[in-house]
Amino acid sequence: MKFITLLTDFGLKDGNVGVMKGVIWGICPQAQIADLSHTISPQNILEGALVLSRSAPYFPPGSVHLAVVDPGVGTSRRPLAARLGERYFVGPDNGLVTLLLEWAESRGDPVQFLHLDNPRYWLPEVSHVFHGRDIFAPAAAHLANGVPLQELGTPIIDPVLLSLPPAERTPTGWLGQVIHIDHFGNISSNLRREHLGERDDATIRLCGVNIRGLVRTFGEGAPGALIALYGSTGSLLVCEVNGDAARRLDASIGDPFEVIFD
Amino acid sequence: MKFITLLTDFGLKDGNVGVMKGVIWGICPQAQIADLSHTISPQNILEGALVLSRSAPYFPPGSVHLAVVDPGVGTSRRPLAARLGERYFVGPDNGLVTLLLEWAESRGDPVQFLHLDNPRYWLPEVSHVFHGRDIFAPAAAHLANGVPLQELGTPIIDPVLLSLPPAERTPTGWLGQVIHIDHFGNISSNLRREHLGERDDATIRLCGVNIRGLVRTFGEGAPGALIALYGSTGSLLVCEVNGDAARRLDASIGDPFEVIFD
Amino acid sequence: MKFITLLTDFGLKDGNVGVMKGVIWGICPQAQIADLSHTISPQNILEGALVLSRSAPYFPPGSVHLAVVDPGVGTSRRPLAARLGERYFVGPDNGLVTLLLEWAESRGDPVQFLHLDNPRYWLPEVSHVFHGRDIFAPAAAHLANGVPLQELGTPIIDPVLLSLPPAERTPTGWLGQVIHIDHFGNISSNLRREHLGERDDATIRLCGVNIRGLVRTFGEGAPGALIALYGSTGSLLVCEVNGDAARRLDASIGDPFEVIFD
Repeated sequence: MKFITLLTDFGLKDGNVGVMKGVIWGICPQAQIADLSHTISPQNILEGALVLSRSAPYFPPGSVHLAVVDPGVGTSRRPLAARLGERYFVGPDNGLVTLLLEWAESRGDPVQFLHLDNPRYWLPEVSHVFHGRDIFAPAAAHLANGVPLQELGTPIIDPVLLSLPPAERTPTGWLGQVIHIDHFGNISSNLRREHLGERDDATIRLCGVNIRGLVRTFGEGAPGALIALYGSTGSLLVCEVNGDAARRLDASIGDPFEVIFD
Repeated sequence: MKFITLLTDFGLKDGNVGVMKGVIWGICPQAQIADLSHTISPQNILEGALVLSRSAPYFPPGSVHLAVVDPGVGTSRRPLAARLGERYFVGPDNGLVTLLLEWAESRGDPVQFLHLDNPRYWLPEVSHVFHGRDIFAPAAAHLANGVPLQELGTPIIDPVLLSLPPAERTPTGWLGQVIHIDHFGNISSNLRREHLGERDDATIRLCGVNIRGLVRTFGEGAPGALIALYGSTGSLLVCEVNGDAARRLDASIGDPFEVIFD
Repeated sequence: MKFITLLTDFGLKDGNVGVMKGVIWGICPQAQIADLSHTISPQNILEGALVLSRSAPYFPPGSVHLAVVDPGVGTSRRPLAARLGERYFVGPDNGLVTLLLEWAESRGDPVQFLHLDNPRYWLPEVSHVFHGRDIFAPAAAHLANGVPLQELGTPIIDPVLLSLPPAERTPTGWLGQVIHIDHFGNISSNLRREHLGERDDATIRLCGVNIRGLVRTFGEGAPGALIALYGSTGSLLVCEVNGDAARRLDASIGDPFEVIFD
């Protein structure tokens, strides 16, 4: 069984995600395809990189992860494929692979990068505006079919990578920032257990409010309470129990997210 | 062929639905997975129960219905599995199964409940915040693989069930309430053919308007007309032909929905 | 492998798309199903026809394209199936097939139409409000199973077709109109390369602004610039680089879209 995941900023109304599935099945009819997200904010490469790195690792070895957030389509930006241990990334060379690559490297997985420049593995006609259909979907399908990576193009060693905002040590704790706001309004930071250690009594300061101490799960606070806890991928979160913390605090991506050890 | 359906309040942007598919395919690679809905209103167990009970029965016998609307994740609420005749439910023990259970019981299907407490069928690490990924998706995949239900945990006989608002007989007819508003703005009630019998000349009173008599289908009213009719699952509906009745009437879940036999 | 695509105006929250998948798998368990769009504007047949015709051709020969935008459900409008070369359309006879038919005819594909009036291939009970579930999903699944088209009903030769707004020649160029606005706010017209020929220096006039000359791809304009270019299906578009042109220009479907050869 061959698994392909799709992540884009295409939205769901115009049929473009379906088009990519049609192209994939035309080349690899036995592919099983899962949508990760198609509502990445338009052209937001960092958000795409983040959602991809939090979802793709849960798929079986051998999976192909196709991702298209592609403001540079049709320019000189390269179409990219990567082998990350036993799985593949296919998408534009604009940094979208960055966080999935970090995950693979943290496991010691061998990695390889490729410029997808062999037109034999593209659709016969390539537009200037939809490489998801014309280059990336065919490449993903051929990889799922077992075509060796090196057939699809030319090895490269300099993929574009994003530089992420690091968390900073402060005299009293850590200064991070908001990196994601989810469907429930939960606010996710770039701070993790490795920053806090066992200091579950720390104070979280965000958007002018202080939250004293971490809890273990949503149900430990009363409905309407603001709580801090570790999320399902290990990030430090601020949430409102049964509510929308981001709306309540008017939080945005990039807002300071501070941890204070009293 | 093994079919698994997914219903959650996770939304589609954060990748969490994709994560569950990855976990399922890691355990049961041949599973065919269908999304029922991922935009159940956050933490609205009753809405989840309703959509589940209206959709799941159309899937083939042997299907596994995974549902996660789970405000109590990480607390003492139990993870639940149920056999309902020839199909399975997997999800939190918070009442989400209630209406699907009623459907199964109305058919005379034998039912069995299980506390999913055998960690051998969980992911190796279980978080306090995402049992959809760590407990429910693995359980659904193992059931689809043919693992016997009783392997997954301990039989129980006291699942949590919702108590639903009943329709009340009045001197002049029935008093029910609005239980669902769909994508088109059609307003669905807890009144059904068994309440009205053949009285298709009844008057429907809702949000201050009276609708005299039922029609058989949408096309029997002029565009813009408010009509009453039975929906595809047998509920009595109020709709605006080619329009949005809920917006026009400012209707909400729980509003009184009255039938008057003149 | 049998592929079925789904396009509707049902939205994704109520479970109705899932219901159709359940019905399909009950009849054709090996069907692979792809969603094209379920957020066609309610009852907007032309938008459905457009998205269908732009997506379906990318699926492999033998695919079955099920489409339901169906304001006339339950009235005398006929349920329709069509063979278009090596692929099938199934849906209401209200014009939804029009543009996919034009595509097939432009390729010289033989076409055949059928009134789906053989109840042997419906669900046992047919509602007046949900033929997607009761008639169209079963028909699509039987076609995917290899049941010959003519088994499903009676041949007809007069399917309902939409008349589309044509582009008009003007003394100075062409007058077309806006026919689609996509998820990114890109504005699509009914003008194409065959209208403009090689005149890439033409001026586009839309919503009171002039755009001088066409570019080849998004990256050729500065962020925030309004540009004109050919989209992935050959339509002439107006876009804002990394922005939302439709919101900026307050553009709507049907707005005049003019090309002027200076």
